[in-house]
Amino acid sequence: MKGIVDLDAAVGSSLFGGAFTFPVMAARRSALRHNIDTLAAFARDHGMLLVPHAKTTMSPELVAAQQEAGAWGFTVATPSQALILRSFGVQRILIANQVFDPAGLDALAAHLAEDPESELLCFADSVAGIETLSEHAGPRPFRVLVELGHTGGRAGCRTLADLLEVAAAAQAAPGVELAGVAGYEGTLDTADEVRAFLHRLLEALEHLRVARPILSVGGSQWFDLVGRELAACQATVMLRSGAYISHDDGIYRERTPYNRIGGELRPALEVWAHVLSVPEPGLVVAGLGKRDAPYDEGMPIPRGPLAGAEVVKLYDQHAVLRVAPETPVRPGDLVPFGISHPCTAFDKWRVIPVVDDDHVVVDLIHTCF
Amino acid sequence: MKGIVDLDAAVGSSLFGGAFTFPVMAARRSALRHNIDTLAAFARDHGMLLVPHAKTTMSPELVAAQQEAGAWGFTVATPSQALILRSFGVQRILIANQVFDPAGLDALAAHLAEDPESELLCFADSVAGIETLSEHAGPRPFRVLVELGHTGGRAGCRTLADLLEVAAAAQAAPGVELAGVAGYEGTLDTADEVRAFLHRLLEALEHLRVARPILSVGGSQWFDLVGRELAACQATVMLRSGAYISHDDGIYRERTPYNRIGGELRPALEVWAHVLSVPEPGLVVAGLGKRDAPYDEGMPIPRGPLAGAEVVKLYDQHAVLRVAPETPVRPGDLVPFGISHPCTAFDKWRVIPVVDDDHVVVDLIHTCF
Repeated sequence: MKGIVDLDAAVGSSLFGGAFTFPVMAARRSALRHNIDTLAAFARDHGMLLVPHAKTTMSPELVAAQQEAGAWGFTVATPSQALILRSFGVQRILIANQVFDPAGLDALAAHLAEDPESELLCFADSVAGIETLSEHAGPRPFRVLVELGHTGGRAGCRTLADLLEVAAAAQAAPGVELAGVAGYEGTLDTADEVRAFLHRLLEALEHLRVARPILSVGGSQWFDLVGRELAACQATVMLRSGAYISHDDGIYRERTPYNRIGGELRPALEVWAHVLSVPEPGLVVAGLGKRDAPYDEGMPIPRGPLAGAEVVKLYDQHAVLRVAPETPVRPGDLVPFGISHPCTAFDKWRVIPVVDDDHVVVDLIHTCF
Repeated sequence: MKGIVDLDAAVGSSLFGGAFTFPVMAARRSALRHNIDTLAAFARDHGMLLVPHAKTTMSPELVAAQQEAGAWGFTVATPSQALILRSFGVQRILIANQVFDPAGLDALAAHLAEDPESELLCFADSVAGIETLSEHAGPRPFRVLVELGHTGGRAGCRTLADLLEVAAAAQAAPGVELAGVAGYEGTLDTADEVRAFLHRLLEALEHLRVARPILSVGGSQWFDLVGRELAACQATVMLRSGAYISHDDGIYRERTPYNRIGGELRPALEVWAHVLSVPEPGLVVAGLGKRDAPYDEGMPIPRGPLAGAEVVKLYDQHAVLRVAPETPVRPGDLVPFGISHPCTAFDKWRVIPVVDDDHVVVDLIHTCF
């Protein structure tokens, strides 16, 4: 197993005690705990249901911890992820996409039929999407949130008229049940744009003829506005944040709503790697690469002795850093890196040691990508 | 399992027959076969040993196929990958890095001691690296290739004098045996630079006092020059190409040596995804994202009905494409994408269906990242 030489000895010893090879990504227990509790409290305090996006971690242990802290259910992006969550024992799943996948829909319809306690919601933004759901429905209907989008964004109806046409199709189609409205505000750039979009969602909701409607919104960047703008609405608001669970030292550190409202999330993930070479003064090659740390929303962030240095190039298995020439760094030094973007960090590791604040490994979490 | 709903029914049926969910990445058997045989023949014809970089796929089935086709051994980037290859049954391993990882070195030393048939080579570019190897050596020595680098590149001694100092340290250190010289030419931009670097490697080799030395060079972009320039040398030349096995429709299609020397490699990987939404004229949202296809050396390349369209943005689970407004594309269409950069494609999938040219699944390959 990547990063682990001795699985039996992994828990209970130091991360640096010989059971692990490097690079390895560790998750700090105290930060995970803090983040899980913090967002659970935020959702509760704002009268929202938390339906965390499980695609971030796809980890049975972390999903269980979020469920224990009060998550109503879990969001996923694909039918495949929904089936994996079913295998974790999750009963309430929201697929935050229009779904066309025939095998996935058939398997999900079978789960709905077999388990009367299970609930499944998915998005739709076209009559074609509703027709596909109708074709694959079993004895219990697929419940649908019609998706509102915005120009230049991702999926979602661009106009209220289009959305109401899809809603009418959902109400007319056998095997489909209209349950509410959904949108994703994470593709917007400013608070004003997000506020305007949330008001368009509320407007759409007013036009639906649905008893006890659901209104679902997204990400980890704007939940403060979501809480404020949607608090008074009559719908059941479902918040789909995912990245909050580990937070980060990059994009989310910059963009978290807690920068505006006070409070904090704590970065939980750290990749440890050896300095493999210092071949020129001021040039450091470290043993972590695209296989080990995310690079899509910023490079890994050196901490510890190399804090302040910059990763100037990331190869598959190497990071090249420029450091001040007088930096006391030698081949063989073990260096920690923070990460930017949790979603593309978790998916690089199948097993992640959970450490206490002294880097003693207290648990292992698994991912199922 | 991501991409598969029915593992039992997966082999023998069409990729589109209901055992698979989408997105899914498939590998074309005929292309894999062609590429494996083509590079095996290239190495043989040029009197080189092929030591394919297994970090590309980390797949036991593909490693076995390469071995059957005549690979002398396998290259890896980390001790962890070396241990995983040992678990595949591989006995000859070249770690193309200086190694400091204590747990990894101890485990590898134990394997060397237990299995007299096993061979292990690794790189070094510093006296500190040699000292670390010496500390962790068991009864059989770690065999070392001293690494030559180039200014602005990755690891490797920058001067012949430095390299000879490391070589002398290797010859003096107990538990370490000097075996030859190594370099990586894939970080160079032009044929002239590569030729000059290969000549520096030959020069370094002449200064080593080693019987039957090894000379190892890298990648999948310049093996034509490697073949030509190193054919007459007295060393055992080990070629570490990795990406050739699946080739691609992007960076390697552009850069393969076969563009210069005639012949070809064939792109083996294709990601299939549903169109999830067509929310605006000319805007298409497809159900594949950073979790499913590489994006570090170019975006996924639409084929089939969307050939010529461009992926303008890749999210975790979505691709946004701009297409000509008259393109006949509907939500629910299933579309294939070629990929750019095999190394960051394989590591996104744990199981990959192998298909024949009619998309009948003939096998499953596994990856162990």
